[in-house]
Amino acid sequence: MSTHDDNRNPLSPTPRTTLTRAKERGATDRAALDAVLDAGVVCHLAVPLGGSPVALPTIYGRVGDTLYLHGSTGAGNLRAAIDTDICLTVTHVDGLVYARSAMHFSMNYRCAVIRGRAVLVTDGAERDTALRAIVEQAAPGAWDRVRPPNRKEMAATMVLALDLAEASVKVRSGGPNDDEGDIATGGVWAGVVPLRQVWGEPIPADDLEPGIDVPADVLALVAPTAVPVS
Amino acid sequence: MSTHDDNRNPLSPTPRTTLTRAKERGATDRAALDAVLDAGVVCHLAVPLGGSPVALPTIYGRVGDTLYLHGSTGAGNLRAAIDTDICLTVTHVDGLVYARSAMHFSMNYRCAVIRGRAVLVTDGAERDTALRAIVEQAAPGAWDRVRPPNRKEMAATMVLALDLAEASVKVRSGGPNDDEGDIATGGVWAGVVPLRQVWGEPIPADDLEPGIDVPADVLALVAPTAVPVS
Repeated sequence: MSTHDDNRNPLSPTPRTTLTRAKERGATDRAALDAVLDAGVVCHLAVPLGGSPVALPTIYGRVGDTLYLHGSTGAGNLRAAIDTDICLTVTHVDGLVYARSAMHFSMNYRCAVIRGRAVLVTDGAERDTALRAIVEQAAPGAWDRVRPPNRKEMAATMVLALDLAEASVKVRSGGPNDDEGDIATGGVWAGVVPLRQVWGEPIPADDLEPGIDVPADVLALVAPTAVPVS
Repeated sequence: MSTHDDNRNPLSPTPRTTLTRAKERGATDRAALDAVLDAGVVCHLAVPLGGSPVALPTIYGRVGDTLYLHGSTGAGNLRAAIDTDICLTVTHVDGLVYARSAMHFSMNYRCAVIRGRAVLVTDGAERDTALRAIVEQAAPGAWDRVRPPNRKEMAATMVLALDLAEASVKVRSGGPNDDEGDIATGGVWAGVVPLRQVWGEPIPADDLEPGIDVPADVLALVAPTAVPVS
């Protein structure tokens, strides 16, 4: 079956985001894409720079079918992305898969890959919406309690948009896929060691004046996972 | 001062890995590079594919001045990397920086970026060394307890090498860099919420026979951080 025949993924209308390896790990629904994106803190943005690709981490935000990126107007990788085909990847590593043989060691993960042409956002209202989404992606609920961007800050900030039309999602979960022979031989531990990101206890800034409590949005962020900072 | 004049970083002999933004976050010693690489579980590999860059997560291993990658001989992004300028990025997100203004929100992170030409490794001994390093990067101490690769597995596996000669390291740590005016106004909580990856309790494979204890190398991996899986 050719790659084109396999291309029935409603997430992606083109062959270049159609999975060619380990297709059983592919998710094909939009909800799966949104779930991977919305759970992320940083993405890796790959752009052509000086004739070869460069991937750098950056924060992002999603509004409907659009991902937004921002940065200084002087940031070389963002400038290189404008009106250019780029790739934006969000990866969660969920665990390490211990197998009975070296070649079956693996990772459990969720990964979303978006390809497309990045567009410079110039409309003022869309830029405001994008910046709010970028801050709230990592820090939900924070935007309304802090000082909004002023004119000078906005002038120094570039906002890029990337449509989610061309995307793929790949997920691996569960235990090792060992060979029957290795399972029959036995004697070797096999399983999964989960890996997850946890927020620690908030650390106030050195210059924070006394009497300012940790706000509710920060407490909500750390509540599920907070562990003492060692 | 030109980019060339600034290029006194012994990690990188070329302008293209010389930082042009937030240079104060750059590390210039080899030990800093090794520390970021050695603490990682996955990297993002960016290659040109179909005329535009694609960044995908993959595991890796370091042996001295060389990073190794591996994968199926059919993996399109690895095949595209051979004898091609690629970028390999390892990122650790260490925390979320809450500021008093939206535009000073930031992340604490450690990031290593390697650029260079990936080379196909064909020497048998080097391939063995590379595969051991890749498994042991994520699962230290596991290699010697499990079945080594057989001839068929080795024939289906591609190993690539990337020299560490051209690299940059960028680190942000500490609290928010708020404007004096916002600090003076006061009333807004500011600080850092740490973020870290923790290993959970090992989960035995469904097909693991009774009586096999969790091995010492797995216990050592999870010991510093293991928390109950919820």
